[in-house]
Amino acid sequence: MAKKYVYTFGNNKAEGNAQMKNLLGGKGANLAEMCLLSLPVPAGFTISTECCTDYYENNCTLPQSLLKEVEDGLHQIEDIMGAKYGDKENPLLVSCRSGARISMPGMMDTVLNIGLCKDTIPGLIKQTNNPRFVYDSYRRLIMMYADVVMEKAEGIAPVQGKGIRKILDDTLDSYKKQRNYKSDTELTEDDLKFLAENFKSIIKKELSVDFPDNAQEQLLGGIKAVFKSWNGDKAVSYRRIEKIPDNWGTAVNVQSMVFGNMGEDSATGVAFTRNPATGENKFYGEWLINAQGEDVVAGIRTPNPLNDETKNDHNKNLASLQESMPNIYKELCDIRQRLEDNYHDMLDIEFTIQHKKLYMLQCRVGKRTGIAAVQMAMNMLDEGLIDEKTAVLRIKVDQLEELLHPILDANDEKKYKPIASGLPAGPGGTFGKIALTSLEAIRLTQNKENSILVREETNPEDVEGMRAASGLLTARGGMTSHAALVARGWGKCCIVGSEGIEIDLDKKTVKIGGKEFKEGDVISLNGIKGLVYQGEIKMSGSPTENPLFKRFMSIVDKYPTIGVETNADNPDDVKQALNFGAKGIGLFRIEHMFYGKNSEAPLAVLRKMILSKTTQEREKYLNELLPYMKDSVKSTLKLMDGKPVTIRLMDPPLHEFVPHTEDKQILLAKELNITLADLQERIENLKEVNPMMGLRGVRLGIVYPEISRLQFKALFEAEAEVRKEGKNNPCLEIMIPLTITIDELKHQRKICDEVHREVEKAMNCSIEYKYGTMIEVPRATLVADEIAKAVDFFSFGTNDLTQMTLGFSRDDVNSIILAYTKNKILINDPFQTIDQQGVGQLVRMAIEKGRKANKDLRIGVCGEHGGDSESVKFFYNAGVDYVSCSPFRVPIARLAAAQIAIESK
Amino acid sequence: MAKKYVYTFGNNKAEGNAQMKNLLGGKGANLAEMCLLSLPVPAGFTISTECCTDYYENNCTLPQSLLKEVEDGLHQIEDIMGAKYGDKENPLLVSCRSGARISMPGMMDTVLNIGLCKDTIPGLIKQTNNPRFVYDSYRRLIMMYADVVMEKAEGIAPVQGKGIRKILDDTLDSYKKQRNYKSDTELTEDDLKFLAENFKSIIKKELSVDFPDNAQEQLLGGIKAVFKSWNGDKAVSYRRIEKIPDNWGTAVNVQSMVFGNMGEDSATGVAFTRNPATGENKFYGEWLINAQGEDVVAGIRTPNPLNDETKNDHNKNLASLQESMPNIYKELCDIRQRLEDNYHDMLDIEFTIQHKKLYMLQCRVGKRTGIAAVQMAMNMLDEGLIDEKTAVLRIKVDQLEELLHPILDANDEKKYKPIASGLPAGPGGTFGKIALTSLEAIRLTQNKENSILVREETNPEDVEGMRAASGLLTARGGMTSHAALVARGWGKCCIVGSEGIEIDLDKKTVKIGGKEFKEGDVISLNGIKGLVYQGEIKMSGSPTENPLFKRFMSIVDKYPTIGVETNADNPDDVKQALNFGAKGIGLFRIEHMFYGKNSEAPLAVLRKMILSKTTQEREKYLNELLPYMKDSVKSTLKLMDGKPVTIRLMDPPLHEFVPHTEDKQILLAKELNITLADLQERIENLKEVNPMMGLRGVRLGIVYPEISRLQFKALFEAEAEVRKEGKNNPCLEIMIPLTITIDELKHQRKICDEVHREVEKAMNCSIEYKYGTMIEVPRATLVADEIAKAVDFFSFGTNDLTQMTLGFSRDDVNSIILAYTKNKILINDPFQTIDQQGVGQLVRMAIEKGRKANKDLRIGVCGEHGGDSESVKFFYNAGVDYVSCSPFRVPIARLAAAQIAIESK
Repeated sequence: MAKKYVYTFGNNKAEGNAQMKNLLGGKGANLAEMCLLSLPVPAGFTISTECCTDYYENNCTLPQSLLKEVEDGLHQIEDIMGAKYGDKENPLLVSCRSGARISMPGMMDTVLNIGLCKDTIPGLIKQTNNPRFVYDSYRRLIMMYADVVMEKAEGIAPVQGKGIRKILDDTLDSYKKQRNYKSDTELTEDDLKFLAENFKSIIKKELSVDFPDNAQEQLLGGIKAVFKSWNGDKAVSYRRIEKIPDNWGTAVNVQSMVFGNMGEDSATGVAFTRNPATGENKFYGEWLINAQGEDVVAGIRTPNPLNDETKNDHNKNLASLQESMPNIYKELCDIRQRLEDNYHDMLDIEFTIQHKKLYMLQCRVGKRTGIAAVQMAMNMLDEGLIDEKTAVLRIKVDQLEELLHPILDANDEKKYKPIASGLPAGPGGTFGKIALTSLEAIRLTQNKENSILVREETNPEDVEGMRAASGLLTARGGMTSHAALVARGWGKCCIVGSEGIEIDLDKKTVKIGGKEFKEGDVISLNGIKGLVYQGEIKMSGSPTENPLFKRFMSIVDKYPTIGVETNADNPDDVKQALNFGAKGIGLFRIEHMFYGKNSEAPLAVLRKMILSKTTQEREKYLNELLPYMKDSVKSTLKLMDGKPVTIRLMDPPLHEFVPHTEDKQILLAKELNITLADLQERIENLKEVNPMMGLRGVRLGIVYPEISRLQFKALFEAEAEVRKEGKNNPCLEIMIPLTITIDELKHQRKICDEVHREVEKAMNCSIEYKYGTMIEVPRATLVADEIAKAVDFFSFGTNDLTQMTLGFSRDDVNSIILAYTKNKILINDPFQTIDQQGVGQLVRMAIEKGRKANKDLRIGVCGEHGGDSESVKFFYNAGVDYVSCSPFRVPIARLAAAQIAIESK
Repeated sequence: MAKKYVYTFGNNKAEGNAQMKNLLGGKGANLAEMCLLSLPVPAGFTISTECCTDYYENNCTLPQSLLKEVEDGLHQIEDIMGAKYGDKENPLLVSCRSGARISMPGMMDTVLNIGLCKDTIPGLIKQTNNPRFVYDSYRRLIMMYADVVMEKAEGIAPVQGKGIRKILDDTLDSYKKQRNYKSDTELTEDDLKFLAENFKSIIKKELSVDFPDNAQEQLLGGIKAVFKSWNGDKAVSYRRIEKIPDNWGTAVNVQSMVFGNMGEDSATGVAFTRNPATGENKFYGEWLINAQGEDVVAGIRTPNPLNDETKNDHNKNLASLQESMPNIYKELCDIRQRLEDNYHDMLDIEFTIQHKKLYMLQCRVGKRTGIAAVQMAMNMLDEGLIDEKTAVLRIKVDQLEELLHPILDANDEKKYKPIASGLPAGPGGTFGKIALTSLEAIRLTQNKENSILVREETNPEDVEGMRAASGLLTARGGMTSHAALVARGWGKCCIVGSEGIEIDLDKKTVKIGGKEFKEGDVISLNGIKGLVYQGEIKMSGSPTENPLFKRFMSIVDKYPTIGVETNADNPDDVKQALNFGAKGIGLFRIEHMFYGKNSEAPLAVLRKMILSKTTQEREKYLNELLPYMKDSVKSTLKLMDGKPVTIRLMDPPLHEFVPHTEDKQILLAKELNITLADLQERIENLKEVNPMMGLRGVRLGIVYPEISRLQFKALFEAEAEVRKEGKNNPCLEIMIPLTITIDELKHQRKICDEVHREVEKAMNCSIEYKYGTMIEVPRATLVADEIAKAVDFFSFGTNDLTQMTLGFSRDDVNSIILAYTKNKILINDPFQTIDQQGVGQLVRMAIEKGRKANKDLRIGVCGEHGGDSESVKFFYNAGVDYVSCSPFRVPIARLAAAQIAIESK
């Protein structure tokens, strides 16, 4: 039996439902669901994503069995709609729309008005009694079809260098100019009739084939074009960013056309069942009278507000749907309620009004800012629409991250006057250099500079530049415009519809609020209020003061899961991490005291120690280092107030600490009382070909045991002093880095025990500590069973483990990783999300071996992967006890850990 | 029941035998075996190695149960020897000697004449009727005991800074000087009696304790001293070099004393049942009349030849045993025969003649040079003493390596006149700077300079320096002296007993053959003939012309095992490897054409290619490279004549190829038609922090597909042209380096297949090839099951795999590995012998996964471990199909592979 490819819907019945997204795509599944909810959906059918996959596997040919199914599906639409496809008397028109499992807004192609041709035009004129509308639809079909089906899908290139769409657009523009028309609406029936014929002959000339003026051919062309657009450049690029697998495919929704452009009693609109920017429980939308759906989303006309709540400075003078068509608005409000009751979530809907009749064209779970997501979850929890677990699961970690994103510093912002305003379409605040093109935004980002992409409006071609920019500012478009949707999806600061922006791409200047800026000038954006400022405003924002954040995190904490600790080496970071709920310090890098503020004095001593030639010399400087080290550890132990503090012995790239300019070298030589030549020779001796795999970590302590000895002494003295101050119960964990064999641990432990005894005796108090090791070299994972016998805890250093397992020097392989992800050789940057198949295999192995050998072994992760949600979920499943990440990632890790704990139940 | 620690032997009976080496040590097991063979062995007993281990585990205390066993053992000796230990009338004297599983010549301590004390002296004088001998033995016991037992074992330091032995020696010397004695033999009974009493009072003064003038105490002291010497500095250092485990322990042999120094009818000697330097089937030995055993080995007196065959320029005027004591010589010849018939091997024996009665004190399998080892094996095979398997197993790979060691170039040697001669004690030839101390030899080696250690005689303290030196030259000692034994064991070029050498350590000069040299001057040694030359003689020597080598290797090849291929990239190496029996090229590094001779022209093009900025530019230079590459591959395919040639795509450290001096950069900038600044920027861009893990291997081909494309083209064209010449059937294997995922292989395969089709079409012939990958990054081993599906073969690159698995940058960690082996953290240098526990685990995993996924997968090894015997045995067991190593290691690998195949049956 052949596969079933076609699933029909209409007349309150459907073969699919909302659960069938994988097969029917999001749009198809939700159209079916709306039918089942008895909402007014124009009849249609969905061709499954499976068919798309088969189409590609079959060398871009539609399966034979599909044709009969499409025919049957059409008949069913015909029966429901009372019209007949290709019929001369009462023709049915359909649309072909894409619909993937996950929404890819604007990334794939659509063909509307399919079925309109020389044979069906007279019948439709008779039915609508509106020949101008019919010819307008016809010329639209021709333009769209020539572009999407003939040029893009079938790959026929126009004779002229530019695309067929551009040729036809130019023809239309010059026709209008000749007649002094300012708008399309001035085109008459005859104009449109003439243009349609003219277009067809241009197509014949440019593409050497006829426009298929034939309903059957058009439908198959439309279906194929949608499938083909799955692999269009835009779609592929979007999938790479969003990490959507290439083999999912898109469904095709063939649906009876309804028209919002049939006159003043017709309209089209989009809406969110709640405010997608703030999360407020208010119906939020935009509409346009006498327009087709694409007009609202394209951001070409500023749309009308849906209702009073949606009014703002830009649209307050335009009539709302509530005012213009109160009955239909009421019907829409009712639908809103039924949808939320059914989906238990905020929905993004598209509707069309044709001759005062409301049709639902689409509904889907709506994208939202992070703030809105958390706000909605809390509201829905209060409303009883969802439970706490659902609330926790509903927030994506990157949405939570948005809450953590910096905003403009309120005090600094007060000092500036906004130069322009717009719609607050994306969260937070930012500043950056003006970039007038995507390329410039990408260039600035590559130079590690903030950029604000300023555009009249954005379109899917801008995706990469939008991704690169720190913020977006557009002249046109509403809250549902392309720029707004994409920015919100990414949690990027964005202001749209800021009137008075005039861009001159030739001169590379832009007028904002009447003031001229050059590309490269700095502006700041407040994405919450929609305000634009000249210059760089300070960033601010401790999200820990946000009550919404606090409440949400307190719910997150109700779900027992792995611990979240932090990587912190200075009091600021430690405090920040505690505010963010860190349960301990999983990684305190002792050498970080030689970076940053107050580091000059210890750094000067460190340099001498590093450049010492004899043990005696080295010991002298080590002793000078001791008080600095002890103080640094003491203050951290105090701040952590009994929570574990895991201190990693020095793992410094020695050569980084020595002076590289001659004047500094001369000075240091004098201090060391040696010649410059001698100093330079010592510096030269520190150079390594591959420092990553050289004299580092525990190796340092084996080659120079005195370096370990000193550190142990500093740690134990710090603990003893804190204990003597009697304020808390310091919890010291000593961590040995870069271990590859148990014998390294034994060697160091011997020194550690000696020092421990000495300090206990000298300070006359008992000192407790745990002894553990980093697992960050592949060999350590392989012999984890042995290593586990010598330690109390493991901590995976997944950064180095990734470097060595993949042979990727983090400092060198950025461009390689780019080439690899571009070529789909790697799916993720393995330094961002753990490589589960490779590195993950070693992690799992080490955990299993380690636990078998030492059942009390505590196991953590202190690489940067500890703050990546996908990685956290992997670590949870692999069985670690805790992850440790940078302070700002702590809430992310807490959420990810809670989610995976809930999901695993 | 208590453990049995004591095993008796004597009177043609024994509780042990030759198989019990682990328990009784080599010496003890062989003493027992000789008793079983009814050879004249003085009665004794062996305290087991287990007792030594227990002694150390028990905090250096002898087990309680041992004392009774020792007492019983003594009684048995007393019964056989007819004397009584500690008896006043007829006292028994014993020796305490060490004896480990594996001989550690001179590394542990011995105490002789134990049981001689004020109570037993009169009885012994009565028995021997030789009071001078008795007092001489007594003063020897006191000197030895004070040194070995009291100072070294019991750790009592003398009041003076120098050792007690030195103090007593100095006392003896000044006593002799006062009396104008030139030799010890001039000391009278009264002198010796006085000295003994004097020594005892010095001991009391210096060590604050009495010399134990008491038989019972002496015996336990001697036993403990031997155990203690197992952990003496010399022994520990020797074990580190020889890789002998610390926990094996030594046995103690307590044996009835016999005296070679009882007058002119007494003697002592050592012998080899065959010539240990050449392997000739001739009885070979040295002896001294009226001497104790240590005198022969110590090399202080030049010993007499055993027989006519042993006579040489140095000893031809001394009487042989054959001449002096023909009956005893005949008895010894008979013993020689019985021992070889029993052991089926060449033996090293020690004997003592006391009043014309022969006693066997030791026998063990004799050390020999590599040449002698092979010669003996072939002779014994011909004699029917051993079979072919035994012959193959008998040659240690490093003995075979000696045969491969370079010797002096015969033609160049002819141009020089020897300045001195000596005994040819170690094989091959060498040259180097004169080092007069071990420290200097070590220093030179660290500077990568050849050194010849020149000494009056060597002693165990010199072990590290002897190890470091390229060759050894001593003034004194025979073929069985310390220097000769050690050098032969290591296969190191060595000449001993070269008279006329005078060393002045203060002036750092040495006279050799009457000519004065400074330390650092260069000399050359011919270790086969025992000749010394001034200056540096060229090295030479293709062992493949050696018929002995050829015959042995032809026997080796009778045992089917894994294949041995070679790593070779130029015609010279390819020819060498074929001569050595390589079955293919397992690794041809394409970038090696840019090193060495004739590399200037292609290197110039390569530089331009590397520094290209655009694909177009790069392709231009790649096309210029094509003919060079093709020629290089063609000539190799032809030489290999149908054997597999595995070509690895370029894996160059790009930055190594660019010019680093400004004048060369200026020139290159001109050629590239760019500014110097631009060139320098491009060079700068190539720099990597950790080049080992940067843009290398397959990554190069993914970032710049044109680089792979060109190489595929060169390879296919080369093969096609060779095919067209019709001379052989080229067997091309293409190998992708640094793979971490199957998708890299697919990416490159696509290009490869395209080029393959193109070249087949263009050249109008069919081209065959295999496609494989290096497995050299840890991740590749983890996903070997996937990778295996895309390839015909794996080749383990164990060098890089070791680097990344251990996090050891080979260029940087030499000193770390030294510190690690010194501290016993690592047993071997993991770059020499594969780290079985770590890297080996990954290798096994990859083989298992790979074979499961692709049963036809061919698996090889092309890291340098492929030429290390221990590693080859590991690879055999892990299941590889072949190893590939540098040409000179091919015979080693063949032997190791045959041995493990035989052993595994």
